[in-house]
Amino acid sequence: MMRSPQVRNGVVDTPSPSHFHSTVSVHKLRRFNILIIVFRFASFCFSLASTIFMFTNSRRGGSDFPQWHHFDAFRFVAVAGGIVALYSLFEVGASVWEISRGATVFPEPLQVWFDFGHDQVFAYLLLSADSAGTSLARTMRDMDTCKVNNAFCVQSDISIAFGFAGFMFLGFSSLLSGFRVVSFIINGSRFHV
Amino acid sequence: MMRSPQVRNGVVDTPSPSHFHSTVSVHKLRRFNILIIVFRFASFCFSLASTIFMFTNSRRGGSDFPQWHHFDAFRFVAVAGGIVALYSLFEVGASVWEISRGATVFPEPLQVWFDFGHDQVFAYLLLSADSAGTSLARTMRDMDTCKVNNAFCVQSDISIAFGFAGFMFLGFSSLLSGFRVVSFIINGSRFHV
Repeated sequence: MMRSPQVRNGVVDTPSPSHFHSTVSVHKLRRFNILIIVFRFASFCFSLASTIFMFTNSRRGGSDFPQWHHFDAFRFVAVAGGIVALYSLFEVGASVWEISRGATVFPEPLQVWFDFGHDQVFAYLLLSADSAGTSLARTMRDMDTCKVNNAFCVQSDISIAFGFAGFMFLGFSSLLSGFRVVSFIINGSRFHV
Repeated sequence: MMRSPQVRNGVVDTPSPSHFHSTVSVHKLRRFNILIIVFRFASFCFSLASTIFMFTNSRRGGSDFPQWHHFDAFRFVAVAGGIVALYSLFEVGASVWEISRGATVFPEPLQVWFDFGHDQVFAYLLLSADSAGTSLARTMRDMDTCKVNNAFCVQSDISIAFGFAGFMFLGFSSLLSGFRVVSFIINGSRFHV
């Protein structure tokens, strides 16, 4: 059975005041998008910091001193951090574009799946790199490397810690973009009411 | 505008023959559930093999010989493999229960979220462990450990490779259980038509 609009005093009473409704959902959408920007920007900052700390982690003074690019795991940390920083920067730009123009950069179905897919893949990439880096850093503490050149080890640890922070915020972004995918599948639009 | 059922020759033509429809969807559901069981069982086998290879990876003959439990990363590999093996075994049991009885072990909303959440978390755990293990294994090849005792290194490599295979199948399961979550949110049931 269909519910028909109620007629009172000869005036048709529409069930949902649609103007009010859409205003509320626009407000919610704006808050949601700002939250995404915050997470993406945090992820950008931390992964950029991780890359910079790792790239500058070479001690001058001859070949005896450790260089970050002599170690596979540290190269992995630097590269993964750089990739995630670039991706996050692009996503911050895409979100700003979306808020200012009210439309996505790519067509909407492509955009929501692009965001979610890349969030997932890059989160795995970054976690993998930082786990490998942690393992190497721990091994170096057991060897004599850190006793001879402690600053190298400390800077590596800081870089890896920033990488894990970046991973955390990328994971949060992944939750939100997953939510947008579900919302898109249900409503046919990324707007969640 | 609503589409009304078409009336031809005085007979109401219902748009979807609902009995046929539900039979098809039950067939599809069964195939989907069997695919989940296959992935979960593969994930169980590989992660169990990973754990067993790591746990038995100690060479007798005195304290000079390397033992797996002297290395943090290898302990992490062994424990993460064990956790994922237990979880996968439980999920295989839950899927068999679901196919045989037609109902989930936990209430349905809890079950779909439980599956998806644990898939995600344990996939990250296993990937992290195996990345750390890979990094340590590579470091050991550069040192003298592997020249002295090559069997230890080979067995570690095999264990880590099994771990990555387990991660891959856990990732596939995670895709399917994510699909079930979306399906549950849309249709109010895990059955996808």
